Amino acid sequence: MSKGLTKREDDYSQWYNELVLKSGLAEHSDVRGCMVIKPYGFAIWELMKEALDKRFKETGHVNAYFPLFIPKSYLSKEAAHVEGFAKECAVVTHYRLKNSPDGQGVIVDPEAKLEEELVVRPTSETIIWNTYRNWIQSYRDLPILVNQWANVVRWEIRTRLFLRTAEFLWQEGHTAHATRQEAIEESEKMLGVYAEFAENIMAMPVIKGIKTPNERFAGALETYCIEAMMQDGKALQAGTSHFLGQNFAKAFDVKFADKDGQEEYVWASSWGVSTRLMGALIMTHSDDEGLVLPPKLAPYQTVIIPFFLKNKPEINEQLMNLAKTMADELRGLGIRVAIDDDETKRPGFKFAEYELKGYPTRIVIGPRDLENGTVEVARRDTKEKKTLSREGIAQTIQDLLNEIGENMMNKALKHQEDNTRSVGSYDEFKTVLENEGGFILANWDGSSETEESIKEETGATIRCIPLDEKEVTGPCMYSGKEAKYRVIFAKAY
Amino acid sequence: MSKGLTKREDDYSQWYNELVLKSGLAEHSDVRGCMVIKPYGFAIWELMKEALDKRFKETGHVNAYFPLFIPKSYLSKEAAHVEGFAKECAVVTHYRLKNSPDGQGVIVDPEAKLEEELVVRPTSETIIWNTYRNWIQSYRDLPILVNQWANVVRWEIRTRLFLRTAEFLWQEGHTAHATRQEAIEESEKMLGVYAEFAENIMAMPVIKGIKTPNERFAGALETYCIEAMMQDGKALQAGTSHFLGQNFAKAFDVKFADKDGQEEYVWASSWGVSTRLMGALIMTHSDDEGLVLPPKLAPYQTVIIPFFLKNKPEINEQLMNLAKTMADELRGLGIRVAIDDDETKRPGFKFAEYELKGYPTRIVIGPRDLENGTVEVARRDTKEKKTLSREGIAQTIQDLLNEIGENMMNKALKHQEDNTRSVGSYDEFKTVLENEGGFILANWDGSSETEESIKEETGATIRCIPLDEKEVTGPCMYSGKEAKYRVIFAKAY
Repeated sequence: MSKGLTKREDDYSQWYNELVLKSGLAEHSDVRGCMVIKPYGFAIWELMKEALDKRFKETGHVNAYFPLFIPKSYLSKEAAHVEGFAKECAVVTHYRLKNSPDGQGVIVDPEAKLEEELVVRPTSETIIWNTYRNWIQSYRDLPILVNQWANVVRWEIRTRLFLRTAEFLWQEGHTAHATRQEAIEESEKMLGVYAEFAENIMAMPVIKGIKTPNERFAGALETYCIEAMMQDGKALQAGTSHFLGQNFAKAFDVKFADKDGQEEYVWASSWGVSTRLMGALIMTHSDDEGLVLPPKLAPYQTVIIPFFLKNKPEINEQLMNLAKTMADELRGLGIRVAIDDDETKRPGFKFAEYELKGYPTRIVIGPRDLENGTVEVARRDTKEKKTLSREGIAQTIQDLLNEIGENMMNKALKHQEDNTRSVGSYDEFKTVLENEGGFILANWDGSSETEESIKEETGATIRCIPLDEKEVTGPCMYSGKEAKYRVIFAKAY
Repeated sequence: MSKGLTKREDDYSQWYNELVLKSGLAEHSDVRGCMVIKPYGFAIWELMKEALDKRFKETGHVNAYFPLFIPKSYLSKEAAHVEGFAKECAVVTHYRLKNSPDGQGVIVDPEAKLEEELVVRPTSETIIWNTYRNWIQSYRDLPILVNQWANVVRWEIRTRLFLRTAEFLWQEGHTAHATRQEAIEESEKMLGVYAEFAENIMAMPVIKGIKTPNERFAGALETYCIEAMMQDGKALQAGTSHFLGQNFAKAFDVKFADKDGQEEYVWASSWGVSTRLMGALIMTHSDDEGLVLPPKLAPYQTVIIPFFLKNKPEINEQLMNLAKTMADELRGLGIRVAIDDDETKRPGFKFAEYELKGYPTRIVIGPRDLENGTVEVARRDTKEKKTLSREGIAQTIQDLLNEIGENMMNKALKHQEDNTRSVGSYDEFKTVLENEGGFILANWDGSSETEESIKEETGATIRCIPLDEKEVTGPCMYSGKEAKYRVIFAKAY
C-alpha cells in the first residue's frame, strides 16, 4: 500500500526527508536549523541513550553536567579548537529584554550587555578542562571518566533533520589520564563500545578507523571513527573518539603530581555520538514503505490488531480479550507491545501505518483465529506473513524479533561488503565512484595535497584509515608516490 | 568526626553551601550563575529523573524535544508571559566569531548579526504552542501529553547552588486538551504525581495547594504547587503545575474542530520540577555530619568496609572474599552496593567520608566477624550501630533501607507538623514568625494589597491555599475584612 513516499531509487534524499516527517520522527521548527524531535523519534533516541548509557557505566564512566555557556575567551585557548568552532557559534551578548519604546513587543536592553560574550557550547572540552583544573592535583585523582548528555549548537548553514542541525542532542565523554598510553587506550576502548552498539543495537555494520589529519577533531592528536554505509552507498560518520594528547591540559593549565611528586600535564580523550545516529538508523534499514526499525530500538516491537466484525459485539469482545491476554504474555517476556483497537480505521490502513512506523512485527487476530487457535504474524523486514499457533506466541515473537535483528544486520553487512571495492588506479577509482559509489579502498601517499585534490576533483573524501587494514604496498593511486596507507574513500553525508 | 562543616544552628545557609561543595554534589562554574553538577550530585538527579519519568509514562505521557532557542517575538505573544520572563533572558544576537584584528583571541563578527534575536528558553510554552498549531486540527488529535527533559536559563542575579541558578535542568510537561475540565484535571493529576514522588521517593512531606494570583506562573489561570518545609522552617516550592486555560492557544492560534466541526481554542496545562529538588532534598534531611540520603535516591545504598589488619594477608583476603560474596547477595536484591578496599585510608576516615556522602547504611567486617559470623551495620539517619548476623544480610539490609526511608519521612513530617501553627491575629502572626518560623496558617481576605503589605512588613509570603483546607470563617488577620481563604504563610527560599 502506498504511503505517498517518494521511492528511494527515484530520489534518495527526498525519500529520507519525507520519511522522517511522515513517520513522525522529527520536523523543522520555526527556529532556523533547529528541529523538533517528536515523541516517536524521541522514543527511539531514548532507547539508544539507554543502551549507550549502560555501556558507558559498565566501562566505569559516570555522568555529570557542565554549563551550556562557554566564555568566549575559553575557545581561544586552544588554537586549533577555536579555528574549528568559532565560525559557527551562537553568541549570547545580552541578558535582558525590555519593552519596546514604541509599545510593540520587546527589544534587547542595551544596558544589559555582557562584559564577556558567552558562546552556546558547540562541544565542551574548554569548559570541562577549565573545571578539571580544580579537580586534579595528584595521580590519585586520575583517571576521571566523565560523560555528559547534553544539547549543543553549531550554526550550520545547510541543515537536514537529524543529519545536520544547528542544535542537536548528544553525549560527550571527557576523560583525564596520567599517561599517554592510558588516554589512547580509552579512546580506542570507546570506539569499540560505539562499534559494538552500532552492530548489536542498531544492526548497523561499521568500519573502525582513524581519520586523516585533515579530518581530525579540532584540537585532537588522533581521531578514531566508525563509518557506516547508507543504502545509497554514501558514508556516514556515526561516532568519533579523540585522543587529545595534552592540548587541553596545556591550554587550561591542568597538571598532576605523579607518585614521585613530579608535575606533568594531564592526558585527555573525548568521544561522542549524537542524534545523527537517528539519520544513520533510518538510512541503513528503511524502505519505500517506511521505517524498518531493528527490534532493540523499536518503541513497540509488535502490535496486536484484532480484526473486528460489524455487528458481532460478542466476537469482537472475544478478540479484545484474546489481544489483552496475549499482550500480557508478550510483556511477560519484556516485549514492548501495543494493541490497536481503533474501530474507526480499516485493517489495511492500520497495516500501512505500522509499516510506515517500522514496527518489527504485527499480529492480526480474526474470528477464524479464535476457532483455530492461530494468529497471523507479519514481519516488517521481509514483509512475510505466516499463520502461527497462538500457543507459545510470546516465545515465538521473541525468537522472531531476534531473527529480524540478525537478518537486518546481515542484510546491511552484505550491502556494505557488496559495495566495498578495491581499486588500483585513479581512473578505475573515478569510474567506480561514478558508476557504483560505495566504499573504495585505495592507496594513498599520506599527503594532504593528494587528499584535497581528490576531494576537489571527485567529491570523495577519505573516510578513514581502517584499523584492520593490512600493510600497504605499491604506489599512491593519485600521485604515484609510495603509498603510506590503504584507505577508504567515499562520498559522505 | 568533624568534617569541618559549619553547624546548622550556627549558620544554616553556610552549612548548606559547604555541604553541597564538600559532599561533591555541585560547584560554581566560571560562568556567572551556572553550576557544574558533579558526578555524585548527578547520580542522585538521575535517580530522581528515572522515578519521575516512570511516573509520567505510567500516566500516559511521552517525551519529546523542542528547540533551545525561542524567537524574541514569541515571548511577546502572551502578555503576562513576556512580563514574567523578558527581564531575565540570555539573548543570542550573533552566530559567528572571528579572529580579532589585533591578533588577540576572537571577537563577535558584526556581520553575523541575527535578523531576529533568539532567547535561550526560560520555559518552553511559546515554542511548544507554536509547534502544536500544526499538530492539532481535530478533537482526534487531542489530548497531547508531552514532557520534555531539558536545560533552561533564567538570568538570576543572586544565585545559590541548586536552589537558584541561571541555568538549571528540569522537566516541563506541556499538555493540550479539548476541554477546560480535562486540562484542570491534568494539572491536578500531575500535582498529585509530584506529591507522591516527593513523599515516597524523596521522603519529603509536602503541602499541596494553589498559588495566589500574585504568585502564579506568568500566563497561567491557576498555579498548583507543592510546598515543603526545610529544617530551618523556611518553605521551598518544590514543584508547580499550571492550568493555562486557552492563553497560549489564543496567543499562537491553536484551534481544534470538535465532533460537530465547531472550532475552539485548545486548553492547556504545563508542569515542572527542576534540579531545585536537589536543594530541597539536602535541606530536608541532612545534618551536621553531612548528607542524609533517602535510600531510594542514594547512588549507593550501602558500602562494605573490610577492616584490614597489618601484616595479615590471609585474613585480609578472607575479608575481601566475604565482602565480595555479600556484595553479590546484596545486588541480587537490587541493592546498590560499593566495596571500599582502599588500604591507604583508616576506617575512621572512611566512616566520616560515607557519613558526609550520606550513604544510608554501611557494613563493617573485621577479623572477629569472620569467626562469629557477624557484621557491624551502621545506619546514617540515626547513627545507630548494631552487630548483626551475616546470615541473611541482604534481606536485613533491604528491610533496614525500608525502615530508614520511613523513618526519614516520619521525622520530616513531624518537623513539618511541629512547625505549622495557626494564628488568629496579625500580632500573633508576627510573634510566631519571628520566634518560631515555620508554616503559619492564617485568614486572608484574598486581596493582593493585604498579601503585599504582609510581605513588605514581615518578609513572609503566602505559600499556598492548601487544597485540603476546610472552609474559612472569621476575619482576615491583617485587614479585619471577611476572610476568603485560610492560607499558609512562610518565609521562603
